[in-house]
Amino acid sequence: MARGGAPGTGSAGPRASRGDLPPQNKRPLRVTIWNEYVHERRDESVRRIYPDGMQRPIADGLRGELGPGVTVRIATLDEPEHGLTEEALAGTDVLTWWGHAAHDQVSEEVVERVQARVLDGMGIVVLHSGHYSKIFRRLMGTTCSLRWRSDPGGEREVIWTVAPGHPIAAGVPQPIVIPHQEMYGEFFDIPQPDELVFISSFAGGEVFRSGCCYRRGAGRLFYFSPGDQEFPVYHQPEIQKVIANAVAWCAGVAASNDPPARREGHAPRGWFSEAGSPARKR
Amino acid sequence: MARGGAPGTGSAGPRASRGDLPPQNKRPLRVTIWNEYVHERRDESVRRIYPDGMQRPIADGLRGELGPGVTVRIATLDEPEHGLTEEALAGTDVLTWWGHAAHDQVSEEVVERVQARVLDGMGIVVLHSGHYSKIFRRLMGTTCSLRWRSDPGGEREVIWTVAPGHPIAAGVPQPIVIPHQEMYGEFFDIPQPDELVFISSFAGGEVFRSGCCYRRGAGRLFYFSPGDQEFPVYHQPEIQKVIANAVAWCAGVAASNDPPARREGHAPRGWFSEAGSPARKR
Amino acid sequence: MARGGAPGTGSAGPRASRGDLPPQNKRPLRVTIWNEYVHERRDESVRRIYPDGMQRPIADGLRGELGPGVTVRIATLDEPEHGLTEEALAGTDVLTWWGHAAHDQVSEEVVERVQARVLDGMGIVVLHSGHYSKIFRRLMGTTCSLRWRSDPGGEREVIWTVAPGHPIAAGVPQPIVIPHQEMYGEFFDIPQPDELVFISSFAGGEVFRSGCCYRRGAGRLFYFSPGDQEFPVYHQPEIQKVIANAVAWCAGVAASNDPPARREGHAPRGWFSEAGSPARKR
Amino acid sequence: MARGGAPGTGSAGPRASRGDLPPQNKRPLRVTIWNEYVHERRDESVRRIYPDGMQRPIADGLRGELGPGVTVRIATLDEPEHGLTEEALAGTDVLTWWGHAAHDQVSEEVVERVQARVLDGMGIVVLHSGHYSKIFRRLMGTTCSLRWRSDPGGEREVIWTVAPGHPIAAGVPQPIVIPHQEMYGEFFDIPQPDELVFISSFAGGEVFRSGCCYRRGAGRLFYFSPGDQEFPVYHQPEIQKVIANAVAWCAGVAASNDPPARREGHAPRGWFSEAGSPARKR
Repeated sequence: MARGGAPGTGSAGPRASRGDLPPQNKRPLRVTIWNEYVHERRDESVRRIYPDGMQRPIADGLRGELGPGVTVRIATLDEPEHGLTEEALAGTDVLTWWGHAAHDQVSEEVVERVQARVLDGMGIVVLHSGHYSKIFRRLMGTTCSLRWRSDPGGEREVIWTVAPGHPIAAGVPQPIVIPHQEMYGEFFDIPQPDELVFISSFAGGEVFRSGCCYRRGAGRLFYFSPGDQEFPVYHQPEIQKVIANAVAWCAGVAASNDPPARREGHAPRGWFSEAGSPARKR
Repeated sequence: MARGGAPGTGSAGPRASRGDLPPQNKRPLRVTIWNEYVHERRDESVRRIYPDGMQRPIADGLRGELGPGVTVRIATLDEPEHGLTEEALAGTDVLTWWGHAAHDQVSEEVVERVQARVLDGMGIVVLHSGHYSKIFRRLMGTTCSLRWRSDPGGEREVIWTVAPGHPIAAGVPQPIVIPHQEMYGEFFDIPQPDELVFISSFAGGEVFRSGCCYRRGAGRLFYFSPGDQEFPVYHQPEIQKVIANAVAWCAGVAASNDPPARREGHAPRGWFSEAGSPARKR
Repeated sequence: MARGGAPGTGSAGPRASRGDLPPQNKRPLRVTIWNEYVHERRDESVRRIYPDGMQRPIADGLRGELGPGVTVRIATLDEPEHGLTEEALAGTDVLTWWGHAAHDQVSEEVVERVQARVLDGMGIVVLHSGHYSKIFRRLMGTTCSLRWRSDPGGEREVIWTVAPGHPIAAGVPQPIVIPHQEMYGEFFDIPQPDELVFISSFAGGEVFRSGCCYRRGAGRLFYFSPGDQEFPVYHQPEIQKVIANAVAWCAGVAASNDPPARREGHAPRGWFSEAGSPARKR
Repeated sequence: MARGGAPGTGSAGPRASRGDLPPQNKRPLRVTIWNEYVHERRDESVRRIYPDGMQRPIADGLRGELGPGVTVRIATLDEPEHGLTEEALAGTDVLTWWGHAAHDQVSEEVVERVQARVLDGMGIVVLHSGHYSKIFRRLMGTTCSLRWRSDPGGEREVIWTVAPGHPIAAGVPQPIVIPHQEMYGEFFDIPQPDELVFISSFAGGEVFRSGCCYRRGAGRLFYFSPGDQEFPVYHQPEIQKVIANAVAWCAGVAASNDPPARREGHAPRGWFSEAGSPARKR
């Protein structure tokens, strides 16, 4: 996924990560960017940074990184069913989620629908204060609480890759520096990630597990912490790169070979003997 | 990666796994199939099943599944440096490994070379009795011992996917049935896998963690247990499918953004401040 | 934890597992056994096996294994607040949970209370059909669905330890054989366990991850699958041993050094500098 | 394990961690502290901090924390067989390891012996520059390389607990502050830890996974990074507390129920049917 040259190469020479471009004969990745879209319309300081909402640079970043390999759709809190109807979700491969001030206003029914889609194979990338969203807490089963600090001017965040070679870290610097950000600090009450990709430090000395991969059911989830609304984090190219990598990673899941309809319930003795028999040799 | 139709599909409809085909403008995946190639030339019963060595159906399977997306090269124990020179390894993206009777004949120097390549980003798929190979034991750090039974006629093995949606399980039945196989049974002295993809049962009642993913350094390792030389396991299409999936998964690693040359040793204060600064906005 | 002699010993000679007996000067482990207690009073076949409810042999097993190190309390569905008041939970170190026919009758309020206690340090051991309980599904975030088969007379289950040395496997045979049990088969829709301790095989060929450890917040969770109400599984000494080991393991959690009251919310710059300063040397 | 009162308590009230004191009728924990003991005798600056070697405060700390529950033995590089004879290792429950200048002088034979003991159930706590020891690299299978910086006067290290409730974090502050330490920075080339307990930040902005748990075979391994010889880190009570917790955690492994002698090699059909049959009911 190297644009403008990857920072480092292994001794095998440059080689493309397979997860970024779609095969020639398949449809593009369908991404729904969900944004609460409250702060940008309510707070002048936020509107100046994100005049068209946070969704704009996130969408621009995806298109810039993934080109024709992606189609992007926006959905916000105030739309009917928050823009996440059954049809919309069925037509979404990966959902991104940013919320902060109005987690409680997301309907339980929609949250259940999103959870079911994730367990059925849809990817989800949860951003920043989305750690307290209903959907993230539901998928994690924990409080997802954390320490935070938002001084005027913020403080420097340094994002370290602890899994080099992971597709989500492709083509980003080691480390990524965000000059001004809100501090998020441990203990972050999440289950131990299936894969820990990034750890951040803050000028004040706190640390945070800032890039966390999970597999839930047939779906993939990536939590990425940078992104307070008072700072232009989503305009930063490295951050856009990570989000694009994460979207592609979430989509790298294969069609399940044991979907819910087939694997729940009574299974008579020997039920699989025919289905599983060796196919005729090639 | 569906051939002949995926057994199951999520509610989002069929979607290609991104890990299988190379982007249009990149080179094919370079696979080296390493086979000890002792039994096939020494034991009549094995030669009848694998007249051209185990490497033949494994190579045929890779080409059948991955087409122009892969180039395959064979290397065997009795070649100079076991066919694994520095140059050969530098030109290998994924190595597969089958050995049994002659683990001790693999030179320490070559084993160190292979380990270094894996930690630097080369993938490795270790098969069956390769669990006792020097390279697998070195990468695991454990004894890799197990229970086994090889009655005449073997016994049925049933391979269950415990991570549906994992690229390595793409397009294979749930479960895969091997009518005749050697029993491998727990306790299998390996580190807990980073991802457990398959668990097998045997007619005698034993179980075995038969599909295990690990990340080591910048590389990926997949251990897959089926494959005793007395049975035609590598001719079975589902098994060839898994091996092809595993090769593609191993190759799905990105170029490391923190390669060894840059990340070992003394780092003066502030060394990263420039390297990590935000790039100009798009 | 060896009763009647451990099946095997390391070369360092026999050594007690530290997790089973309480220190001399501390209070005993306080266990609450929660049982739905519907089948035993409704179905004659079940009553014959469990005349005083499933809770009886489970409690007897705990007292037999842990002696004065444990105090046991029973709670059932039909009690006020299902016997799980704030006070009862505050006085519980480890909760065991068996339910099947009436998951939906457990009140949301009680489920939330139990979840909060687990995240705050209480252990929970979920048994068999408890996989579909509200509390387990809430802590997992997944559907927790599975395949099952309950032929008359059941079928043999063989439970294999895949983590020898794990305290939960202390003093139990490798393998444990249950002659008659209900089949539970993969794909079991749970998050990948933090530690996988047991894998079961069934006579029909299915496998199941039957002993799964999780850490959630400051608490520990163990899921153990054997235990259909139509079979005397909870009378079997090896099963009682595992449950006792699991209860002790859950209790082996330390008092949290970063409890919720201290770690949520705003943290001013340098807040920890005093709290974290080196104490005076000994 | 609370000395002077645990910093925080769960709502269940104070409760002892079971892993710290030995049961009344069992022998104490037998710890061997292995120290290279080169710097302390060669470098004046180090001798001033550790006049009797680093082993002294480490041993004092263990005795102070674990009292009669522990017996401590010292072994150093220059002893015959580095003080790690078969007999010595057979009589060791947990080994601690500190080395830096002379990793290459540790004999291969002793390293193999130590590895075999760990896989057979002995615990090992690897400290600081021990990351480059032969034994650690052998158990990890990776290079174990890292970034470092050792300015005069060092820099502040802040150690954050990311697994509150873990026995290794019992009774230590959140966070632990070391005013002067050598910087260790990511990417630390280790396998993803089975459990990540601590993450450190450094004044320069780097982070490091400073407390890492692994299970290898029947044994437990804990890597703890603080401890450069130029700073009095091992005199710091919180550090001594962590080491004592780690030693107790390593020892919390149970006697294996599937030791090597029984689980390697040929297993005839039905071999376990008797061994695994249900014992007579209690």
